[in-house]
Amino acid sequence: MDEVRVRLPGREYGIYIGCGVLAGLGKLAGQLGFGNRMLVISDTNVGPLYSEKALESLREAGFTAELVTVHPGEDSKSLTVAQKLFGDAIRLGLDRRSAIVALGGGVVGDLAGFIAATYLRGVPLVQVPTSLLAQVDSSVGGKVAVNHPLGKNLIGAFHQPRLVVADTAALSTLSERELSTGLAEVVKHGIIADAHFFEFLEKNHAAVMAREEAAMTRIVRRSCEIKAGVVEQDEKESHLRMILNFGHTIGHAVEAGGGFGRYSHGEAVAIGIHGACLISHYLNFCSEQTLRRICSVLESYGLPIRAQGLDQDELAVFISRDKKSLGGTISWVLLKDIGTVSVCNEVPDEVVRRALRAVT
Amino acid sequence: MDEVRVRLPGREYGIYIGCGVLAGLGKLAGQLGFGNRMLVISDTNVGPLYSEKALESLREAGFTAELVTVHPGEDSKSLTVAQKLFGDAIRLGLDRRSAIVALGGGVVGDLAGFIAATYLRGVPLVQVPTSLLAQVDSSVGGKVAVNHPLGKNLIGAFHQPRLVVADTAALSTLSERELSTGLAEVVKHGIIADAHFFEFLEKNHAAVMAREEAAMTRIVRRSCEIKAGVVEQDEKESHLRMILNFGHTIGHAVEAGGGFGRYSHGEAVAIGIHGACLISHYLNFCSEQTLRRICSVLESYGLPIRAQGLDQDELAVFISRDKKSLGGTISWVLLKDIGTVSVCNEVPDEVVRRALRAVT
Repeated sequence: MDEVRVRLPGREYGIYIGCGVLAGLGKLAGQLGFGNRMLVISDTNVGPLYSEKALESLREAGFTAELVTVHPGEDSKSLTVAQKLFGDAIRLGLDRRSAIVALGGGVVGDLAGFIAATYLRGVPLVQVPTSLLAQVDSSVGGKVAVNHPLGKNLIGAFHQPRLVVADTAALSTLSERELSTGLAEVVKHGIIADAHFFEFLEKNHAAVMAREEAAMTRIVRRSCEIKAGVVEQDEKESHLRMILNFGHTIGHAVEAGGGFGRYSHGEAVAIGIHGACLISHYLNFCSEQTLRRICSVLESYGLPIRAQGLDQDELAVFISRDKKSLGGTISWVLLKDIGTVSVCNEVPDEVVRRALRAVT
Repeated sequence: MDEVRVRLPGREYGIYIGCGVLAGLGKLAGQLGFGNRMLVISDTNVGPLYSEKALESLREAGFTAELVTVHPGEDSKSLTVAQKLFGDAIRLGLDRRSAIVALGGGVVGDLAGFIAATYLRGVPLVQVPTSLLAQVDSSVGGKVAVNHPLGKNLIGAFHQPRLVVADTAALSTLSERELSTGLAEVVKHGIIADAHFFEFLEKNHAAVMAREEAAMTRIVRRSCEIKAGVVEQDEKESHLRMILNFGHTIGHAVEAGGGFGRYSHGEAVAIGIHGACLISHYLNFCSEQTLRRICSVLESYGLPIRAQGLDQDELAVFISRDKKSLGGTISWVLLKDIGTVSVCNEVPDEVVRRALRAVT
């Protein structure tokens, strides 16, 4: 079992990574001083696969844990579903010391995290991410949210988990596409912070795609280390944390442009990474060779680098809408070299348009 | 204009108190680095009285401020109303630097505070309390919440305001009953922390009840100082902050027992203070003379000290429900002498029953 510590003042927590670590959930939770009752939130895809093992481990450790499942998918990240889950928490008699356990992918983590952030003004949260995307990204760092009919993730909080248990055995049940969507964020971590890790990803795509245990543990651990390092320095995204949004500006536009169904989050981010690299290259921040290496890694992990069929004008509109909602400035994360990025608030419109043309 | 500073690390803020300070709202807000757009949330009672002055002051200071009003009363503290207000914030293009302004009493402060705590994972909050209860209690300290159909204030956050502007001129439009409900918390502040202030309240009830400017400014300022002092030491109610709940254990039961309409919050707290003093006296913590002084002050401010007609068995049931939802222990705040209280987790049931019998 590997352990990554996230060192935030007064709220330090551990991420436990490895094959089969789910069986140790109860024991790990038992060391944290939680109250006896627990609510485990999952969805109807993940629940049947892993809830029995999770509940058994928690009950063996002496917890009274109850399972509630929601429909899979983004629609469950709503205030309506949250209202129902608050009701479950109240009926089960959860108090301030009771933990909420998120067992599932990014949607379950965000939703259960929002419940934990706001029930009784905040109760402990345990993340048990079962998708690669959740293990390498969304379960770490404390961003939780639900959607509003007018936009995604607009209602939320920064609420750090008290414990993250990432069982790489769960990755074996993911579809190819679900695996790839997580790998986009893994590649991103290499690009923004660690050239050596990026080289590992270049050389080991066969082992990763075959989901070999050692490779999976390494990519989850290193991703968590990189993300934790950034979050420790800038928990609430004042500045440095923005580098985690590398590839996400165009990525969000691609997700929206495809109606949030055509491209998964990771696929859209891969296209966005390509776009951000193009912009960096057009501005002479990075070499063409760097650009080519990145495209080649993304493609080797089964990720698209172009949103064929999407309209570049439409993407530009989505970007300008994001810009408006961010108070008039977009912080573009640009690439200097693999492992080194910087935040830039001014990119000429024609450069952005040129990149959009190239990725559509 | 009086100023009280709340010194929380990295989130220090000022409470500005005095007759007519509302006119300076824009200028005070202008010093805090907020974004240009603002959403002012009020209700249909308070809005017509003070929103014009508030908006004018904000606009003169260069802000683009829009007003949204909700129905007065506890029913507006719901996720349904919150969902509508999030929509207003989105449509107005509020970004992370935009402030939410709560203009009204406790309900508006709690609701608008919840919006500010969760919109885009937290935006700045400005409290402009217009009731005495909000000025001396709910606008300070960062507790915000909405209700769930199964219970009050169960969904919320700790989200400190960036600025509080308490215009004592607004107190002139309150009904006698609204004034009294705030005075219960003022008396509580004297009892838990300042014997000298309690004496002032004993001697000056005529000036306070006549709402004389100097007296009102003094009671608001001293209440804010006492509450700020407690919150600075224990923001999230781990221990010390519990002393602010003096009188609230029985008080909550009285509110619930009366169906949340028969007794106002302050009236219920006054009865609860009487109950807590009786328990303290039965346990030989405080003298009968102290008990009599407190009852006499409460009555001089038009507050009830008994819930005539309520059933003591029913009150006991509400208390045991609270106990269950708090994880099995109630932290009773007991009185030693005026100005000195302590938290006690064990009070024999028969002592509680004796006090309940005496206050019904």
